[in-house]
Amino acid sequence: MPDEETVPLAGKLAGLTSSAIRDLLKLTAAADVISLAGGLPDAALMPGPRIAAAAESALRNPAVLQYTESPGWGPLRDVLAERESARSGRTVGIGEVFVTHGSQQALSLLAEVLLDPGALVVVEDPAYVGALQVFRAARARIVAVPLDNEGMRVDLLEELIAAGQRPAVVHTVSNFHNPGSVTMSPRRRRALAALAEKHRFWVIEDDPYGELWFDRPAPEPVATYSSAVIRLSSASKILAPTLRVGWMVAPERVCRAVELLKQGADLCGSALTQQIVTELLADTGWLDSHIDTVRTVYAARATALVGAVADQFGDRLRCSSAAGGMFVWAEFTDGTDTRELLPRALDAGVAFVPGQAFAVATPYPHAMRMCFTTAAPEVLAEAVARLARAVEPVAAAGQSAQL
Amino acid sequence: MPDEETVPLAGKLAGLTSSAIRDLLKLTAAADVISLAGGLPDAALMPGPRIAAAAESALRNPAVLQYTESPGWGPLRDVLAERESARSGRTVGIGEVFVTHGSQQALSLLAEVLLDPGALVVVEDPAYVGALQVFRAARARIVAVPLDNEGMRVDLLEELIAAGQRPAVVHTVSNFHNPGSVTMSPRRRRALAALAEKHRFWVIEDDPYGELWFDRPAPEPVATYSSAVIRLSSASKILAPTLRVGWMVAPERVCRAVELLKQGADLCGSALTQQIVTELLADTGWLDSHIDTVRTVYAARATALVGAVADQFGDRLRCSSAAGGMFVWAEFTDGTDTRELLPRALDAGVAFVPGQAFAVATPYPHAMRMCFTTAAPEVLAEAVARLARAVEPVAAAGQSAQL
Repeated sequence: MPDEETVPLAGKLAGLTSSAIRDLLKLTAAADVISLAGGLPDAALMPGPRIAAAAESALRNPAVLQYTESPGWGPLRDVLAERESARSGRTVGIGEVFVTHGSQQALSLLAEVLLDPGALVVVEDPAYVGALQVFRAARARIVAVPLDNEGMRVDLLEELIAAGQRPAVVHTVSNFHNPGSVTMSPRRRRALAALAEKHRFWVIEDDPYGELWFDRPAPEPVATYSSAVIRLSSASKILAPTLRVGWMVAPERVCRAVELLKQGADLCGSALTQQIVTELLADTGWLDSHIDTVRTVYAARATALVGAVADQFGDRLRCSSAAGGMFVWAEFTDGTDTRELLPRALDAGVAFVPGQAFAVATPYPHAMRMCFTTAAPEVLAEAVARLARAVEPVAAAGQSAQL
Repeated sequence: MPDEETVPLAGKLAGLTSSAIRDLLKLTAAADVISLAGGLPDAALMPGPRIAAAAESALRNPAVLQYTESPGWGPLRDVLAERESARSGRTVGIGEVFVTHGSQQALSLLAEVLLDPGALVVVEDPAYVGALQVFRAARARIVAVPLDNEGMRVDLLEELIAAGQRPAVVHTVSNFHNPGSVTMSPRRRRALAALAEKHRFWVIEDDPYGELWFDRPAPEPVATYSSAVIRLSSASKILAPTLRVGWMVAPERVCRAVELLKQGADLCGSALTQQIVTELLADTGWLDSHIDTVRTVYAARATALVGAVADQFGDRLRCSSAAGGMFVWAEFTDGTDTRELLPRALDAGVAFVPGQAFAVATPYPHAMRMCFTTAAPEVLAEAVARLARAVEPVAAAGQSAQL
């Protein structure tokens, strides 16, 4: 009897690879390793009992047990429309709100809706890996524009366009970038929106971290400045990833096109988890205080991590300021190669993600991403101390090679 | 300022249309219409309080709040492996079980994994509309093989192959077909599996209704006979659609390919709803009794519907026997055109789906699908009485045209 091994899979799968970070995370799961490599919010800060109470109350309505509408549970879309109206300073209609199974699904459906194969997508360098995966699967042509302290170098995007490039989509993580940590400045936001309108491309403003500011709120969304900007956000970082609730604010014709694809992709989301999110987002008094707690805890951890890096490394490891979000981006100034460093770091009991994992055009050999959300300040200090022990021989080797 | 209206969507969207059934359902939502057009399980039979209790208990574990693994929550995959081993008479390993966001997502990811554009997919005629949507989006070439009382005409599939056609995938709803109501006979199952192995194609055995048998259990799965058969099933019809838990049993290399795509599509499912399903499926005493109740209620409704059709129409409307599942397929023998009938039926206060909505090669002008799950027996009898009142003029017109 022939084996199923002889039945072929699709040839187009050949180019598809797993995320390097996911593969790395499997290696760093050892109990004695302090992992700064992950990208998870802290489960200890998530409102488990509040979610349980909301679930119980939601389930008294039989409609919550059933299939729901493809664009999302009506009451949630109402709450989101109100919330996004406040955020963007214009009235967002319910027809412009589309709920997805996490914002990764919004990205994935948008890639189908906005891109024909070979279309040009501009991403930031370093890039959000989940977006790269989606745009590669859509067979887009990907060009990267670097970040600086003000976010995407919109001037370089303009140069690209002046040189004849015609993007279909520009993707930006506008607030507290993953992995770059930076937030796009208001003037860059205005410039990007103006370019989008002038040259008729879509901006996908991917904003899962915007609420996680530490000292002052994130600037007005890029979407404030143009209806060519599609805004994505999520309940994962402010409530809990298990709810799998993300959302998109986009022109109605984009939402209708996404709806057709959502029907084929998975019919609809969960009315149960969407009603839970409805209740929690609508309880603004509780929500504000909850998010405030998350901000305070993350801010203390970020400060501890950045401070420990400064103490241990001085100028040898230049660290982004951590003004919000979940990550710090750091670059060695002494030639240390972070891919070569990683095995030694694991031996020393600390993990991070080498910059190369986020590289598009620039290889980032000396960079690394560190996540500060899931460890206490003293654990983060210990992690950096271990990193310093792991680094010594590399730096020495680098110096001797220069002799 | 230019409007976003001028920013283009992907050209490939041109061929994409909404499901005719979904559009129809919007028309039939009037309160005074008895709708047999839907395809929903009965929310009144779903275990709301049991789900609430399971949610509360699940949420005591912080891991349930977090992102979970792309192939699904470990404990659920364990329970499913055990369950599917019992169903298929062989040991199913956890690596062969992949949890999806409803079984529609499994279909959609499998289409990506198994099909290159232009690949040949064989479906049943009439076809499950959700599968057609997926295979069309994957740009497959679709050929339909008709159903008879024993399910798919595997002899005609064999003829197709003998004539030089080379399917990549054959899709079958093996038990209590939607919309055809029929169950594939054991000898056809063996023949289909043998063909798959001989000609190296995949069979997708789509089985959401297998547990909903009325008089006797469904035959052994097609997957029993070959590892070239990928089996899909779901918690939607036995527990509740809101959980959005479907699953696939497939060779590990297929599961690994689906995992890569799931990461891009939506990262992972909900550990919360997956843990709820784990608890409910693992409580086999409770589950058996719960499913037994659903079977008993649905069986009484199916009997009422089929009986009312026989009483009202005699031989004029030939109805499938309802041995399980959620649907009855009926064909007028007197020339009544069901698309022409529908507006009159809505006027008379009853809705159904015309056969044409499920057509691939055959137009099924005289056929209709009726769902019996959500109305009590006396309501179903009233629905059929209304249908009879709506039919009279059409039949008369048909007869006079024959003169």
